[in-house]
Amino acid sequence: MNVTPLDESVTLERTIEGGTEKQRESVSSIIEKVRENGDKGLIELTEIFDRVTLDELFVQQEEIDEAYNQVNDKELEAIRKAIENIRDFHQRQLRQSWMVTKEDGTMLGQRIIPFDRVGIYVPGGKAAYPSTIMMDAIPAIAAGVKSITMCSPPGEDQRLHPMVLVTASELGIKNIVKIGGAQAVAALAYGTESIQKVDKIVGPGNIYVALAKREVFGQVAIDSIAGPSEIVVLADETARADYIAADMLSQAEHDELASAVLVTTSEGLGKKVAEELERQLEDLPRKKIAEESLDKHGAIYLTETMAEAVEAVNRLAPEHLEIMTAQPDNLLGSIRHAGAVFLGPYSAEAVGDYFAGPNHVLPTSGTARFSSPLGVDDFVKRSSVISYSKEALEENGEYISAIARIEGLEAHARAVDIRKGEK
Amino acid sequence: MNVTPLDESVTLERTIEGGTEKQRESVSSIIEKVRENGDKGLIELTEIFDRVTLDELFVQQEEIDEAYNQVNDKELEAIRKAIENIRDFHQRQLRQSWMVTKEDGTMLGQRIIPFDRVGIYVPGGKAAYPSTIMMDAIPAIAAGVKSITMCSPPGEDQRLHPMVLVTASELGIKNIVKIGGAQAVAALAYGTESIQKVDKIVGPGNIYVALAKREVFGQVAIDSIAGPSEIVVLADETARADYIAADMLSQAEHDELASAVLVTTSEGLGKKVAEELERQLEDLPRKKIAEESLDKHGAIYLTETMAEAVEAVNRLAPEHLEIMTAQPDNLLGSIRHAGAVFLGPYSAEAVGDYFAGPNHVLPTSGTARFSSPLGVDDFVKRSSVISYSKEALEENGEYISAIARIEGLEAHARAVDIRKGEK
Repeated sequence: MNVTPLDESVTLERTIEGGTEKQRESVSSIIEKVRENGDKGLIELTEIFDRVTLDELFVQQEEIDEAYNQVNDKELEAIRKAIENIRDFHQRQLRQSWMVTKEDGTMLGQRIIPFDRVGIYVPGGKAAYPSTIMMDAIPAIAAGVKSITMCSPPGEDQRLHPMVLVTASELGIKNIVKIGGAQAVAALAYGTESIQKVDKIVGPGNIYVALAKREVFGQVAIDSIAGPSEIVVLADETARADYIAADMLSQAEHDELASAVLVTTSEGLGKKVAEELERQLEDLPRKKIAEESLDKHGAIYLTETMAEAVEAVNRLAPEHLEIMTAQPDNLLGSIRHAGAVFLGPYSAEAVGDYFAGPNHVLPTSGTARFSSPLGVDDFVKRSSVISYSKEALEENGEYISAIARIEGLEAHARAVDIRKGEK
Repeated sequence: MNVTPLDESVTLERTIEGGTEKQRESVSSIIEKVRENGDKGLIELTEIFDRVTLDELFVQQEEIDEAYNQVNDKELEAIRKAIENIRDFHQRQLRQSWMVTKEDGTMLGQRIIPFDRVGIYVPGGKAAYPSTIMMDAIPAIAAGVKSITMCSPPGEDQRLHPMVLVTASELGIKNIVKIGGAQAVAALAYGTESIQKVDKIVGPGNIYVALAKREVFGQVAIDSIAGPSEIVVLADETARADYIAADMLSQAEHDELASAVLVTTSEGLGKKVAEELERQLEDLPRKKIAEESLDKHGAIYLTETMAEAVEAVNRLAPEHLEIMTAQPDNLLGSIRHAGAVFLGPYSAEAVGDYFAGPNHVLPTSGTARFSSPLGVDDFVKRSSVISYSKEALEENGEYISAIARIEGLEAHARAVDIRKGEK
């Protein structure tokens, strides 16, 4: 990888894949089938797409017990510690309802109310993604959501991955449905005989899951459809090239579209990072993916000054930002746009991906300009409360009807007047 | 209007208008033209759609001064008092950034950062809507957004309505652009020579504005596209029929699609409200609109018990809910889904529409199940901060790499190991 001067037109913006016409049609017909045939439709679609005939839609306690036998102590301890950290962070995001009272008897308030029901989609496949479950479910649990339904596609043995079951069980998730794909999204959005419809669906998935989420949006809320993952590392000459390269590779190994970018004021560091990338790539299991990602979407940019580098970061608005400079804290106040900021040499992105506490579901493709990490806010809504006394209405009524009449809405004005005995 | 038993299948859900193929094409070509031709394109499109040739895109101070001369003292006082109340309520929504520190040197935080730039669309036409400007701009101002650009279509005299100019001026909005329609949305989303592109566009508009907002969504954030307005009044036999009818009419006069519904445990009250609706309709300037709205989307439902009525309200999840019962406060805790709740006989919806403080931009079509009133939250984003010390990494590194390896992401694990000197 070459060290190149920063190009101002560089962006992390990506077009989010809209799927082919055929994929969209397929998703529509799957959703239709679930709406029409309910549980029976789910069983049939799972036979077609997952090549397995389910005896039960829901995971039974016995399967959970068996799953615990297949997870080793170290793994279980790691999951438990991660849950503790992630729960602690998200509980701090909870807001209280509040109320203001005035002397004229007015009472105004803002209630914070959790959603009734949330659905979480967890992708299947050979690897298990316990972090997905933790990061999607814990904010909902911390928000106070009482009913959480998790859906994930079954393996050929009708089972879910033991790590998935254990993580869900540790979180207290009771409704686990062995259904994946667009059919899972349809079941969560519209409900079936055995699955209650939810208010919001979150979680990553393949193109069919993404298209289905887009199609049911409005019927239910959904999380944003994530683009490829990105990291920007902001570094000066004091940074360790081997750490930076390791973190860039941990981003690049996700998939070929992932983007790992270094912005530095030090040409020397840039060159060392390029060397380290070569060296560390060598024996990486996912070398091919990481290599393609670095080739196509990786970069090492050189700027003259740190101010210029910071401005570039704000322009890019990266999902993950690592600051590895002599005084990383001093730069934090200048960073306006980044999903999560990792400060200093020991804050590897992996620390935040799995363990530290903040959410790993972050705004991608430059949307950190106006979007936030997944959090408790995504599972509560605000509701306003207005209570006016007779006195308050009599005192302020003339102003209210004046504005109503400016807007040409006479019935609004009269609704005030009638209470003043004027109509 | 008849008093009918509550039907459980009743819903406030509406299909949001998607526009015709021709309208969508027209909007796409307008956006394209603005992207290509910038300010010149805006001037040309305004000639076509507003039949006026603009000398200036931006409102000049002289026009503001003249506008003040056309607004009477009572109106100005009403606007100023409303601004004060709305500002006070929204300032209370502001959240602080926070930070947690641990003994091992870990620092975790959540920063709250306002958007850089926001665009506000204000519809034109013969009536002025100062409340739209207040309700859309004040949350952004309270959030700390530094740059606000307002767009509104000019009249034949190249001017905006004096009430619009005065309200904007009272709020300190400096950038006022005399452009409306899809072209305004395009200018805000992509920028031109003289208009800076924004991060979020809010505000109501006609179908072209709505389609344009939908098309630029992703490039910028947008507010939700509102459906027709609704009110549900929950009342027992103690409520005043004339107040309820007045409030239902103030909803019905908005447009033919608006929906005004009474849910009551008292058949006597229901009948009296029906009579009052007839009586009050008689001399209403917007009688025709209100009548059609009541005919097509109005209803008076009777339930056996208050518990049943409350459950109906939660199922409907109305934009506005008025509670007119003997003890309205006692029911508040049972209301899970409503955009804004108005308690007691003197809390007419109009009080909240214009003046009390809470926002009047509320979730419609049953989306109060998972959506909130417009507020400061809509103009800030959260950003997470993670700072790990050497000690914290050494203590927790093994857990982090264990989870990374469960997920099959070796480079993530190595990014931790290398910092422990293990790679």
